[in-house]
Amino acid sequence: MDAAIIAVGSEMLTPQRVDTNSLFLTELLNARGVEVVFKVVVGDDRHQLVDAIHYALSHARLLILSGGLGPTEDDLTREAVASYCGRSLVFNEEICASIAQRFQRMNRAMAEVNKRQAYVVEGAEVIPNARGTAPGMWVEHEGSHIVMLPGPPYELKAMFESQCLPRLDQLLPAQVIRARFYRVAGMPESDLDQLIAPVYRQYTNPATTILAAAGDIQIHLRAHCHTEGEAEALLREVGTPIEELLGDRLYSRNGNPLEVTVGELLRGRGMKVAVAESCTGGMLAERLTSVAGSSDYFAGGFLTYSYEAKTALLGIDPELLREHKAVSEPVARAMACAALARSPASLAVSITGVAGPGQGGETEPVGAVYIGVADKDGCLVRRFQFAGDRHRIRVLATQTALDMIRRRLMGNGDSPWHH
Amino acid sequence: MDAAIIAVGSEMLTPQRVDTNSLFLTELLNARGVEVVFKVVVGDDRHQLVDAIHYALSHARLLILSGGLGPTEDDLTREAVASYCGRSLVFNEEICASIAQRFQRMNRAMAEVNKRQAYVVEGAEVIPNARGTAPGMWVEHEGSHIVMLPGPPYELKAMFESQCLPRLDQLLPAQVIRARFYRVAGMPESDLDQLIAPVYRQYTNPATTILAAAGDIQIHLRAHCHTEGEAEALLREVGTPIEELLGDRLYSRNGNPLEVTVGELLRGRGMKVAVAESCTGGMLAERLTSVAGSSDYFAGGFLTYSYEAKTALLGIDPELLREHKAVSEPVARAMACAALARSPASLAVSITGVAGPGQGGETEPVGAVYIGVADKDGCLVRRFQFAGDRHRIRVLATQTALDMIRRRLMGNGDSPWHH
Repeated sequence: MDAAIIAVGSEMLTPQRVDTNSLFLTELLNARGVEVVFKVVVGDDRHQLVDAIHYALSHARLLILSGGLGPTEDDLTREAVASYCGRSLVFNEEICASIAQRFQRMNRAMAEVNKRQAYVVEGAEVIPNARGTAPGMWVEHEGSHIVMLPGPPYELKAMFESQCLPRLDQLLPAQVIRARFYRVAGMPESDLDQLIAPVYRQYTNPATTILAAAGDIQIHLRAHCHTEGEAEALLREVGTPIEELLGDRLYSRNGNPLEVTVGELLRGRGMKVAVAESCTGGMLAERLTSVAGSSDYFAGGFLTYSYEAKTALLGIDPELLREHKAVSEPVARAMACAALARSPASLAVSITGVAGPGQGGETEPVGAVYIGVADKDGCLVRRFQFAGDRHRIRVLATQTALDMIRRRLMGNGDSPWHH
Repeated sequence: MDAAIIAVGSEMLTPQRVDTNSLFLTELLNARGVEVVFKVVVGDDRHQLVDAIHYALSHARLLILSGGLGPTEDDLTREAVASYCGRSLVFNEEICASIAQRFQRMNRAMAEVNKRQAYVVEGAEVIPNARGTAPGMWVEHEGSHIVMLPGPPYELKAMFESQCLPRLDQLLPAQVIRARFYRVAGMPESDLDQLIAPVYRQYTNPATTILAAAGDIQIHLRAHCHTEGEAEALLREVGTPIEELLGDRLYSRNGNPLEVTVGELLRGRGMKVAVAESCTGGMLAERLTSVAGSSDYFAGGFLTYSYEAKTALLGIDPELLREHKAVSEPVARAMACAALARSPASLAVSITGVAGPGQGGETEPVGAVYIGVADKDGCLVRRFQFAGDRHRIRVLATQTALDMIRRRLMGNGDSPWHH
């Protein structure tokens, strides 16, 4: 079965808003073997909306509309679907009562306008909305399925997962989908593709998707089969050689981001990490602590963006800073060692670099970053040259620092340690 | 003139990818008074693509297609437009030579397949691409304008700005557009709308758009007029009463984010800020240092997520932590004071709270956050109760801390200061 998605709302046509509901819907549809063949974003215009429904249903048997179910005159999805199907809108007492109750619970008066939300396309099945006032609808029309859901993601997600998916599963042929979700650090996308394409290009099932972000590549394998055993066997057949080719550049087999992998390694070894960040200004620590429970292994951080702060917070010798400048191997080393000594950490990482756009008085060029990792056995510092704007350089430095921690914890990283 | 945008490429229909080219295009089109009436995302399928072009041109006189101009058989935009217009594709020697030169400069051999990119829709004007191999095209057909641009944003943006906009301007009636871009912290969207709707609802020109994110609301006013004077007068007429209603909740009149406003205030006063972050783990410092030149006013930071780190890095008395727990008014106060004393800062801010999902042994509930601001005159601590998931609570805490700094620096914040 093919699906189309229409996001309704003039605000979705502004430069500031992007439709993210369709990403969520696509993921769950794809996992069931339903392909999304196109997506449309249309404003609050009845004529445009009816035309979009015509267009969508000429290419897909399942149409999901998000948005346009609110109480105001701008909200036209109900009317447009009724008009497309040649059906009327019917007032539903039960929905009206439930909206009134909802307002009562919030101690607010229900405005007359909210009654609009109690109108239902004739013959539609109502999809209750536990998280808002707008109910959804599922309409069958001439062999097609039209699903209307409210625009707020918090409401749409709950309704789609709990009520639409079970209904959808009844329409679909029995099939099993299994996936692997690899993540790789420290490789350009073209190098990775050159390495593994000879393997995955031989297969259309599992389907392979490669997605690259700054310093991070995701590889998705998705197998559709009749049985779980078949699907797992296919994933093994393609996945095992890919894992071998990627070796220790592979940091996740389940889609977890690098900060989660690093956190698990730290927790497993009973270790704690401290950070000393200069040009990244807290981005590394923010990623480490974005994980719930990270207080178990995050021992603290020193943010020392200026020369003065490096001396005040970490005790870096002003003479060392004068002689080598802040973006240098000796300063990265001193920062990592000081963070280790001044915190309850068993491992410390330092980042000092030129994030740009200016050089800020350093002799190193924009994009030059030194990263140090120190533990009881010593300290290793490496120099990197990153390209891009300020944000990208900070992201790449953070990602690379996490990967250096990972490699150190795996015991395969970057020997020899210098003392 | 109305416009439609089609993003071409099967990867744009995966759960991982979102079309962002259209946001860039919409912004520049809107600024010229061109409205985008809908957007379509379609895969690499010739039939689908031709249908999407039909659909688009039945609603808009300007159609911009992004993507599908690469060298492989999946790249079908050229063919689809030619087919729609009933024209042929013509081999263009000049383009072929320029692609060959490009490969030569990179010391690479040009593959035979790249010759596909030298085919041009009959009668199209070629839009050269200085940043990649795929040239764009501009086709006039039966009063409509079809613009084809390559998908990579780096290429599309340069081509659209330098070559499409001047051409577009010749098609449009002379008009002037002026905008104001306000930002507001610390107000729920519904309260803000109730406050200012009586003003902006009276006008369709300037058009008003309100966008809300966690703890941050943007208000855009856009006036279209014949002269700059008229546009500015309209913006004043609507903007001035809105500014008065918002008062000191308004933190930006030019769209700058709160960290930029705070940075400018710090720089203007010759002050430096230090942070002591617990539950936000570096997010506040990351925002402050995301601004180029922030080393002028960022004095450093202490990331003390655990009890142990609060004592080791900031010298917080373990007895105080035992008695009040870490998420408490006295600990927030001690953290801010210690950050001020231990860094070269003239102002320090502390954040300690329960970001969740668990309570982590604290007595305060998830979402409870204490924020302290200390300077030479004393320290003010406020307690907040935020709602949402871990990420949202951290964002709200960060945003609120920045706003407390702003108010303190403006001299209108939250007196009396306690000593």
